[in-house]
Amino acid sequence: MMNAPAACVGDPVDVIETPALVVDLDLLEANIRRMADFAAARGIRLRPHAKTHKCAAIARMQIAAGAVGICCQKVGEAEALANAGIGDILVTNQVVGERKLDRLAALSKRIRLAVCADDGGNVDRIAAAAARFGTVVEVLVEIDVGTGRCGTPPGAPALALARRIAGHDSLRFGGVQAYHGSAQHIRGHDDRRAAIAAAAEGLRQTLDLLAAEGLDCRIVGGAGTGSHEFETELGLWTELQAGSYVFMDGDYSDNLGPDGQPDRRFANSLTIRSTVISAPVPDRIVTDAGLKAMSTESGPPRVVDAPWARVRGVSDEHTVILTDPARRPGVGAVLSLIPGHCDPTVNLHDWIIGTRGGIVECIWPVDARGAVL
Amino acid sequence: MMNAPAACVGDPVDVIETPALVVDLDLLEANIRRMADFAAARGIRLRPHAKTHKCAAIARMQIAAGAVGICCQKVGEAEALANAGIGDILVTNQVVGERKLDRLAALSKRIRLAVCADDGGNVDRIAAAAARFGTVVEVLVEIDVGTGRCGTPPGAPALALARRIAGHDSLRFGGVQAYHGSAQHIRGHDDRRAAIAAAAEGLRQTLDLLAAEGLDCRIVGGAGTGSHEFETELGLWTELQAGSYVFMDGDYSDNLGPDGQPDRRFANSLTIRSTVISAPVPDRIVTDAGLKAMSTESGPPRVVDAPWARVRGVSDEHTVILTDPARRPGVGAVLSLIPGHCDPTVNLHDWIIGTRGGIVECIWPVDARGAVL
Repeated sequence: MMNAPAACVGDPVDVIETPALVVDLDLLEANIRRMADFAAARGIRLRPHAKTHKCAAIARMQIAAGAVGICCQKVGEAEALANAGIGDILVTNQVVGERKLDRLAALSKRIRLAVCADDGGNVDRIAAAAARFGTVVEVLVEIDVGTGRCGTPPGAPALALARRIAGHDSLRFGGVQAYHGSAQHIRGHDDRRAAIAAAAEGLRQTLDLLAAEGLDCRIVGGAGTGSHEFETELGLWTELQAGSYVFMDGDYSDNLGPDGQPDRRFANSLTIRSTVISAPVPDRIVTDAGLKAMSTESGPPRVVDAPWARVRGVSDEHTVILTDPARRPGVGAVLSLIPGHCDPTVNLHDWIIGTRGGIVECIWPVDARGAVL
Repeated sequence: MMNAPAACVGDPVDVIETPALVVDLDLLEANIRRMADFAAARGIRLRPHAKTHKCAAIARMQIAAGAVGICCQKVGEAEALANAGIGDILVTNQVVGERKLDRLAALSKRIRLAVCADDGGNVDRIAAAAARFGTVVEVLVEIDVGTGRCGTPPGAPALALARRIAGHDSLRFGGVQAYHGSAQHIRGHDDRRAAIAAAAEGLRQTLDLLAAEGLDCRIVGGAGTGSHEFETELGLWTELQAGSYVFMDGDYSDNLGPDGQPDRRFANSLTIRSTVISAPVPDRIVTDAGLKAMSTESGPPRVVDAPWARVRGVSDEHTVILTDPARRPGVGAVLSLIPGHCDPTVNLHDWIIGTRGGIVECIWPVDARGAVL
């Protein structure tokens, strides 16, 4: 059930089998460096989200550049990355179910682990699992700062939950999770800033209540690639959890920077290499990358090598592209596609092929690929 | 990189970890039997498409019920299923690239294998790979019968390609591939029939030209779950390639039958079991299955246990559901979701959990999961 990689180290990029998930190592390293430098210059901690890359090799590069640890969304991701040597993980999600809580508690004996909660009954069940395993699990209160997904309302309900955590011997209150997911792709720079400023109101109120009771927050977490500047300038958050900046994608490429132009401070390091497998009529080509090689729910892929081309549709194993007949790539031509959304695209692949200067330099397993549990 | 399954054989379904891909074995078996009986009663061969299930255990059930073999879309799928014991495979797609053609030729020495082509240069390269491996590869001409994706135009171009195949010592002309993908989800029964009738014109013309030159077709392949009745009644096709009928999905559930009502002749056997992990306000719940557990490009999932509920959105690891407060499922409740599109959903999972009478009866590997190469 594990698939062979699409290339060998040392191969010229031309012989990589397709479709393949390829990362430009120069661009990846520059992205990692830029975010690390941003955080270091402003005295805020960086805990990048590994839901994007699911890859221990990249997590280690982030930690080597200064990150304090990583975030995951699933216990299975945390297990996979802990098994690959990552020692400080925050699960930025609710974990529900007896077997899952057993796994969470067991893992907390091996690495520094924290988890979020937004429900009192769930807090009690985390405590019971931790007690069963003779360990102490750190729990953050997740508050809803505007996305309308998980998270208790800010203020009094968050304080009540923090008290409940602090009241269990097998739990440790760890702080507040305040991530505004739906703000990440608001296109205008000032509109994103305004969304985060609004989110900060509920967070500030919550932090004031916690401080008044002496409930210390080791972590006040949040921020994504689209908003991290704004959480940082507001001074309430202590950890940035951006993930997509390592790869970027078509959706993030449409965000505007402070000058009103598409924001290119982080580069598109990730592409799907794809081969033209059919060119049956003059204005149409079909490539070998479809829905099983890239996610399209945030828009179709962009064709790096043929920006004039228009993606007509993506089906399970094909992308149909309409192209100028005079410039039509022929059968066998290889195109690089920027996926609409990097996270679910990476999750489709077993391997990330790293290239530099036209040569395959590394082949990394996507350690937590498919770790949905 | 392989994930543990979400349950053990013998578990009650209540303890299956979530999100998990679950198949109701009674319904699966009935679907397999129904399509096999349909084909047997009409004297047409059935070669189900394994792109849907990617699972050797299910392919073997289909063959035991009478199927002559299976279809795949990728050489990697064919390799995985051949390694698991499937001995007769048609790759219903173009295969392009030197390494891929080497793999195709090598595999043809171990099982009965055929492939499609729509390009003369590609035919020559398949022939060269077959000669390199000292084997003979069977090649079908793929024609475009209306989808506008792969496939040479019907008629003279198809004949020219068939001649080119027949002219190579290392190839054998195998017939014609005539699949109308975009007709499968036309909602009206008579509208689907009309689309297939139109597709048949180009196929008939092509078959007449081939017959006039004595180019015999072992396989005239096509038809999907949405159209198989119509290819069968037209009498030109010799093999049905339906795949989705084993599982069905939300998209197929919207197709209408001959009575103008939703067609329920094949049952929804496949669901995603998902746990409510957050219920922060009275009218909203959040489950633990998102885009990494199910595909949404053909529409959001349907909530089997709460048909009144409305899916507000699906993000990477969450589905947000708006629900009647009086009937709101609580944190820890388990919901079964019918995915919008079964094929890319199955491809996200390592295991299919088979249940009967409330008990886990089998745990099948998705052998060709992620086999995009």
